[in-house]
Amino acid sequence: MSTTKTGQPLSREALEKVARGRLFYTPSFDIYGGVSGLYDYGPPGCALQANIIDLWRKHFVLEEDMLEIDPTMLTPEEVLKTSGHVEKFADWMCKDPGTGEIFRADHLVEEVLEARLKGNLEARGQEVKVDEEKEAKRKKKAKQQAKAVKLDDAVVQEYEEVLAKIDNYDGEGLAELIKKYDIRNPVSGNEVQPPVAFNLMFQTSIGPSSNYPGYLRPETAQGQFLNFKKLLDYNQGAMPFASASIGKSFRNEISPRAGLLRVREFAMAEIEHFVDPQGGKKHPRFNEVKDVEISLLDRDTQLAGSTKVQRMTIGKAVEIGLVDNETLGYFVARICLFLLKIGVDESKLRFRQHMKNEMAHYAADCWDAELFTTYGWIECVGCADRSAYDLTVHQNKTGASLFVQETLPQPVEVEQWEVDIDKKKFGPKFKKDGKAVETAINDLTQELREKLSISLEKEGKIEVEVPGVGEGKVEVPAELVKIEKRKHKETTRSYTPNVIEPSFGIGRILYCLLEHSYWFRENDEARAVLSFPPIVAPTKVLLVPLSTNSAFEPLVTQLRLKLRRAGVACRVDASSASIGKRYARNDELGTPFGVTVDFQSVKDNTYTLRERDSTKQVRASEEEILKAIKNLVFGEETWEDVAKRLPEFTSQEVE
Amino acid sequence: MSTTKTGQPLSREALEKVARGRLFYTPSFDIYGGVSGLYDYGPPGCALQANIIDLWRKHFVLEEDMLEIDPTMLTPEEVLKTSGHVEKFADWMCKDPGTGEIFRADHLVEEVLEARLKGNLEARGQEVKVDEEKEAKRKKKAKQQAKAVKLDDAVVQEYEEVLAKIDNYDGEGLAELIKKYDIRNPVSGNEVQPPVAFNLMFQTSIGPSSNYPGYLRPETAQGQFLNFKKLLDYNQGAMPFASASIGKSFRNEISPRAGLLRVREFAMAEIEHFVDPQGGKKHPRFNEVKDVEISLLDRDTQLAGSTKVQRMTIGKAVEIGLVDNETLGYFVARICLFLLKIGVDESKLRFRQHMKNEMAHYAADCWDAELFTTYGWIECVGCADRSAYDLTVHQNKTGASLFVQETLPQPVEVEQWEVDIDKKKFGPKFKKDGKAVETAINDLTQELREKLSISLEKEGKIEVEVPGVGEGKVEVPAELVKIEKRKHKETTRSYTPNVIEPSFGIGRILYCLLEHSYWFRENDEARAVLSFPPIVAPTKVLLVPLSTNSAFEPLVTQLRLKLRRAGVACRVDASSASIGKRYARNDELGTPFGVTVDFQSVKDNTYTLRERDSTKQVRASEEEILKAIKNLVFGEETWEDVAKRLPEFTSQEVE
Repeated sequence: MSTTKTGQPLSREALEKVARGRLFYTPSFDIYGGVSGLYDYGPPGCALQANIIDLWRKHFVLEEDMLEIDPTMLTPEEVLKTSGHVEKFADWMCKDPGTGEIFRADHLVEEVLEARLKGNLEARGQEVKVDEEKEAKRKKKAKQQAKAVKLDDAVVQEYEEVLAKIDNYDGEGLAELIKKYDIRNPVSGNEVQPPVAFNLMFQTSIGPSSNYPGYLRPETAQGQFLNFKKLLDYNQGAMPFASASIGKSFRNEISPRAGLLRVREFAMAEIEHFVDPQGGKKHPRFNEVKDVEISLLDRDTQLAGSTKVQRMTIGKAVEIGLVDNETLGYFVARICLFLLKIGVDESKLRFRQHMKNEMAHYAADCWDAELFTTYGWIECVGCADRSAYDLTVHQNKTGASLFVQETLPQPVEVEQWEVDIDKKKFGPKFKKDGKAVETAINDLTQELREKLSISLEKEGKIEVEVPGVGEGKVEVPAELVKIEKRKHKETTRSYTPNVIEPSFGIGRILYCLLEHSYWFRENDEARAVLSFPPIVAPTKVLLVPLSTNSAFEPLVTQLRLKLRRAGVACRVDASSASIGKRYARNDELGTPFGVTVDFQSVKDNTYTLRERDSTKQVRASEEEILKAIKNLVFGEETWEDVAKRLPEFTSQEVE
Repeated sequence: MSTTKTGQPLSREALEKVARGRLFYTPSFDIYGGVSGLYDYGPPGCALQANIIDLWRKHFVLEEDMLEIDPTMLTPEEVLKTSGHVEKFADWMCKDPGTGEIFRADHLVEEVLEARLKGNLEARGQEVKVDEEKEAKRKKKAKQQAKAVKLDDAVVQEYEEVLAKIDNYDGEGLAELIKKYDIRNPVSGNEVQPPVAFNLMFQTSIGPSSNYPGYLRPETAQGQFLNFKKLLDYNQGAMPFASASIGKSFRNEISPRAGLLRVREFAMAEIEHFVDPQGGKKHPRFNEVKDVEISLLDRDTQLAGSTKVQRMTIGKAVEIGLVDNETLGYFVARICLFLLKIGVDESKLRFRQHMKNEMAHYAADCWDAELFTTYGWIECVGCADRSAYDLTVHQNKTGASLFVQETLPQPVEVEQWEVDIDKKKFGPKFKKDGKAVETAINDLTQELREKLSISLEKEGKIEVEVPGVGEGKVEVPAELVKIEKRKHKETTRSYTPNVIEPSFGIGRILYCLLEHSYWFRENDEARAVLSFPPIVAPTKVLLVPLSTNSAFEPLVTQLRLKLRRAGVACRVDASSASIGKRYARNDELGTPFGVTVDFQSVKDNTYTLRERDSTKQVRASEEEILKAIKNLVFGEETWEDVAKRLPEFTSQEVE
């Protein structure tokens, strides 16, 4: 069961009441009945999101001189065909033919097996700990499954093993599970049809003629890959380097639940770090992070049906080969440091390695940063090694030079099959396809060149695959092309970089941060607090005049101007509610500091400064208070430091 | 003709060479042949955009405590039907039936008439000043129109009048022009078909079942309107207030040209200022801006076929009724101040009032901030009075309370038609529709109530329109409802706020800023400079070690760390290119300051600081140089101040 940071039982319902009530987020198009999977961020959520993104930009982009770009969301179909998304970016869905309801297949299996396991515990008279919301919904809907049925020990173990690796099943695997365990629509009791793939991209049409299909991007990455050559040039040819993008992406989820955690439109922040695959993907700054301790859940542990993490330094993890290479390890550690900086609870953070079938179609290895919530462990950051997949497929498709050419320190002698093309004869022979045929021949691998050199000798011609020309194959006679093995010196080396991709789901991180920051005073859920670190808090300081007396106005205006000039986000609450009520409202908004303006202030320009978590107050001159606020907000001092320096204020003045 | 800020002739080709060459922006999906109307921002463009947005947030959102929200881009069809976009958000297109080519009708008329006017000037042997790019394209394509044909003076005047109000024609008007002036496809010479409306929204489908159509939002505004009630509550009921949103919007342009100025996906920043329509829409801070001088081009001047601006203070413009009210005027002035702050050339800025037919379907009045470029005057910010249109239509459609209820200082006596409903009988009679019928009756206007009171008396029943129930009409017998005229005291007043909407096209502003900032040294286009103000410059400081000598490394690292900690974006160029080349590259990137690290620096920790526009340098200790940079970047000092304080450095040390 989830607990708050102070060890109190964490009720999602109570948390959501605060988060939605204070307009951190709210269902989009609510007055039209809402659309599942779409949420708007209200003022505090929008500011929290902006602060997380700002810190992300400083922690990653500025710290390492990454090249941030802003590519478009609209993406033509051809690009996503090449990247594999049109074919493979899909989830499995199955339909209840009786009711027309559509389920995501893996979620349906999970739901039904979890319900049976719970029924078993009930039947055995054991205490049941389950997801509250799921449980409430289940009870409401699923009459036929709410029965407490005892299961054999072997069956229980089987179910648990299936659930531990539920992300590892493909469509066929899910179909088998559904058949084997007689998984049905829990509400209607109907059998469901076998799973079919449903592509998760939103489709649209670009331009007025409706024959140019496009999609909303499912990730920002493709825009970065397509610009690789331009970015390398901009970087004056220096490797390694990273690009980065922050922006919205879209996934047409089959049946989104779980609030902000599974949405159809979401902010992402993605890094593509381009690295030479030779030399073990070392990272020059790995040394700076090697002692960072991480909780790791590797692939083998999961396949054995367990979820036990190992705690070790990232240095050790790379050394023993648990994490594949330094660059991947460097980013795992940097991600960990970022999450802790924004206020994630370290005891609710783990890095989980993807299982083979679970990985995206392009990935060579992948570790997810997962955060624990009332929904269980949630993937918030993916850190994948996409190898050279994307640059290679786009280069093959377009003929663009998505590779690096570097001068060798010393020339090396190489022997290889070389191709000579008689360009003069190419034009007359192939007309407009000449260039495509030429490119196809120049792109032939060494193996193919060797093979074709034989057919050239024997048959006086070669057959070359040229996609898009004729039937896709073209015959080239010997008088147009020569293939020979030759020795010569090379002074440059070409390679396609590999890509390490840390990819952040900002909305998921934001939701988990709400859960990790939430607690309540004196065991009273009505007195909730969100303990954001000052650096991400939506508002840093609340200014509270003691009453609506006009004597306070000039002081409030002056404080506000000075704070604004210092770059400190502040708000005024000059409403007629009691001081206590106004502070309570801002505890729920996560505002870390409050300044009270009272009659003493009018006399001597002193103010009280209140800290949110302890509710302790100090009192000092305007200058001292402003200095303390700046130090607290920009991380130069902690509240403990300030409380030591400045006199405590205990009695609240009453009007 | 366009000139640079230093009065040099401004060639768009030369400017674009710099902007694209330095990767401010680049065609999206370039290696796939590109998609017209889609551009990616590279690193300097992305940073410039982020800085403009950051300043926008400070100038508008923080300065006035606006409630910034982040609503979704995906929007269900129903919402955009209500707002009128499904029916009316369209441009007129016409097709050449011979070639299949599709034209935007108004652009076609413009192109052809402008070409004829030019031909006329040529025929009369006069000098011709025209858009260079258009001209080059035209010459290339349009053989049959390149003829120099002399026109009658009356025809010339007619054409010019049509062009001055080209935005005022609807589909029928454009059809008439096409017929009257025999406008044809300039390339094929074919007649074109009559204009038809083409909706500019990108359509898609939400969810797996494909029966839930949606669009990509064409503006951020709707998301703000739908949240009005929640935002009012969040604001503790206080009026007036403003919401704001920054994000991408989408328009499926018929045939986008003009680079960044007409794109299919673009960043917008929009404010919706909600104001009580009673009392003349006064603004409490109007006094602060009343002396701001603006260039205004009003509706009547345009309809008279002229484009002559009037220069006056916004105070005067509101006083004489040229600008309708204080709130609209306040924002016109604030928009002007914002544009000047980011570096817009004041002599290339005007505010143009929309003509009646040109206004969006919801607008009551509208002034555009237009910036002059090589493409002519370009709308960059719209400032519209949307009246109560949006809140009213959404309230009527959904029944949500999108209005303000305020307590009156004194109760007032009113006499009005009131409705009593017998709720007990409603349930049994109307079943599940009871609530809808009740709402419909309560929402009846005073006029309808009076009318229905008569039929109630005469016929013993009334007929009420209830959309979505039965045939849309419901009969209610007299025993369920009573309608009477009564007098009583009211203590509250309800009203639907009017909305003033300043709406910024960030990409257009960015492009115009590039044009306004561009010039070149010593009449050599190869030595281009972009003179951005430090506040928006992508990089503030370039650090340049004199050579690749390793002795400079620790000094560069130390300066970089200190600047980063001070929040100053800096970059290092440690390449082997000459100092001059490295500075020239950064002149094109608009980097305002440069610090050279040389052998003297290694000895005594002094550095030279260079200013971009003057290329003057000063030399001082590390501490002094860092202080000067901070002052310059954060606007505490100008370069003139610094150059006065610190000793000038003239001789460039050579290694």
